[in-house]
Amino acid sequence: MTWVTPRTDFKPRRPIFLCVLSSTDTAKIPGISAAGKAPELTDYTPAGDAELVDTGRSISIKVPPMTPLGTPTPAVITRAALQLTDVPYLFINSGLRVRPKIPAIDIGVLPGKDIRTGEAVPDARDIYEKGVLLGRQINKLSDLVVIGESVPGGTTTAMGVLHALGYQARVSSSFSENPLDLKKKVIMEGMKAKGLSFGSLRSDPLRAVECLGDPMMPCIAGLVESLRIKTVLAGGTQMIAVYALIKHLGLERDVSIATTKYIAMDTTANFKEMMEELGYLVYIADPGFDRSKLLGLKRYEEGDVKEGVGAGGAMFLASLLGVTQEELRLEVEKICEEIF
Amino acid sequence: MTWVTPRTDFKPRRPIFLCVLSSTDTAKIPGISAAGKAPELTDYTPAGDAELVDTGRSISIKVPPMTPLGTPTPAVITRAALQLTDVPYLFINSGLRVRPKIPAIDIGVLPGKDIRTGEAVPDARDIYEKGVLLGRQINKLSDLVVIGESVPGGTTTAMGVLHALGYQARVSSSFSENPLDLKKKVIMEGMKAKGLSFGSLRSDPLRAVECLGDPMMPCIAGLVESLRIKTVLAGGTQMIAVYALIKHLGLERDVSIATTKYIAMDTTANFKEMMEELGYLVYIADPGFDRSKLLGLKRYEEGDVKEGVGAGGAMFLASLLGVTQEELRLEVEKICEEIF
Repeated sequence: MTWVTPRTDFKPRRPIFLCVLSSTDTAKIPGISAAGKAPELTDYTPAGDAELVDTGRSISIKVPPMTPLGTPTPAVITRAALQLTDVPYLFINSGLRVRPKIPAIDIGVLPGKDIRTGEAVPDARDIYEKGVLLGRQINKLSDLVVIGESVPGGTTTAMGVLHALGYQARVSSSFSENPLDLKKKVIMEGMKAKGLSFGSLRSDPLRAVECLGDPMMPCIAGLVESLRIKTVLAGGTQMIAVYALIKHLGLERDVSIATTKYIAMDTTANFKEMMEELGYLVYIADPGFDRSKLLGLKRYEEGDVKEGVGAGGAMFLASLLGVTQEELRLEVEKICEEIF
Repeated sequence: MTWVTPRTDFKPRRPIFLCVLSSTDTAKIPGISAAGKAPELTDYTPAGDAELVDTGRSISIKVPPMTPLGTPTPAVITRAALQLTDVPYLFINSGLRVRPKIPAIDIGVLPGKDIRTGEAVPDARDIYEKGVLLGRQINKLSDLVVIGESVPGGTTTAMGVLHALGYQARVSSSFSENPLDLKKKVIMEGMKAKGLSFGSLRSDPLRAVECLGDPMMPCIAGLVESLRIKTVLAGGTQMIAVYALIKHLGLERDVSIATTKYIAMDTTANFKEMMEELGYLVYIADPGFDRSKLLGLKRYEEGDVKEGVGAGGAMFLASLLGVTQEELRLEVEKICEEIF
């Protein structure tokens, strides 16, 4: 059964999975992020996600990351896919306030600030250069790299950057009720602070990140500059923003997107329109949670969480390497039962 | 011409080079370490070394690491070998006081303390576990891993651990005049503080690290626990201590040592006796600096510096991959002329 579309016959010999982790003060604006039981817990979410993927439990927080409704973090999907495939993975600390208690590549940069200041990532160009350095090593290690993220508040910064680059993006949300109006308000405040308008930074994309982005974006763009291998950005609207950034930087690389069906079916967002406008190839993975016995996983079918921690890309990898939808779902359920 | 002995016909398909970086307060005891122009600069040495290998220059310090005599850091050799072979490399921050301004895997642990306290690495067991986690990923990425180190003061901690494990080790020094009496005095003070005697920790090797070691040692031992691939410890007497640690932990893995001829010919140390006692296979690399036009490199022939930053292991990799001694020396000279 095809559970990732479109099908591809590419057989990677040396796949690798990366996940870029950042903190942002934007995530602490009440109502912006559901990546944490409460806004002040969002600082712990990337660390908890990385620990969960690597060890099967969150070490930095007692309760593993989940939404206010109690829907589990997509890290459970990522862990399942990586465990079933044995694909090597590395986490990248690109500006974390709370570092994970597992080994992670630190590029030595600061967390993102509140985008209402219009000075979200002052060191975006330095982060980009660190990404370039790291990408040189990754390029030698692999023939397919899948890059995910865990950045609370990240759909708002994605929308901000897309706006500054000239795209009418409606982004997704980890809330099942998407607070689009609040996101717009926050972005407009940041743009006003710097005298920016829709599309005014389309030819200065790193400036768009400096003003309205988050530290994950220039890290991945820098990685991509160094990569000469097949590259898959694993995520929803956040990876659309990274894709747009790469395109506006003039980088011509073999880059596509992989995400979950929950992003594709999100009617509050315009994932498909953006796809037509930007022209990326997207792989869509369906974990089959409609058949799950676990309520938390079933809430994904209702639009809670949707994507994150590279879950869609990890499933893309799993399907490439012969894992079936049922094997994936059963492994996710096993992981959930062990930790929740 | 054979410039690394014994010859081996092993042809790695996916070699990787790692370098573990740690700070220790032991390095600040006056007279202990030449890895820095002055004792207080030793905190910057591992960062400067890593930056030099990755970018060709030291970023965290104006003057690249060198001995008080001005002999350049062995990082120039490591950079030459890695540039000529295009082998992927990753640095590991295992307790640095000054982190390098390049991407490095951070395992999130503290610098080593002064071994005169007898409490050099209180979290040795936690560091070991972090090494185990990281090793699982490295094992999937490679078929040959070469592991170097940059740890100022590291020959003293090596001697301390070897002593506690029951080996009469005379260790090498980055000084051409080896301050062995001072090292012994420092070690004896640490052993006295904890009521230890020669060989008293032979069956509790991680305790030997806790009392007298440095954070690099349990990190590499943990890595080795996870590795099922050919593993080469790149260094002199410090890697003998790591080898002894691995052996006393009961880990049976495919581990050998690679080092420079300057370690092998050091008559103040007992590298060859230790080899017979511990039974490791050692590869010895000769960079041919006797034919160099640069005074700084010629001082290696007089016993200054000798080894570090995995230089011997990086040369071992270069020779495996077909680089000649002359190509290596010319590349080292080019790098030196660019930076000094």
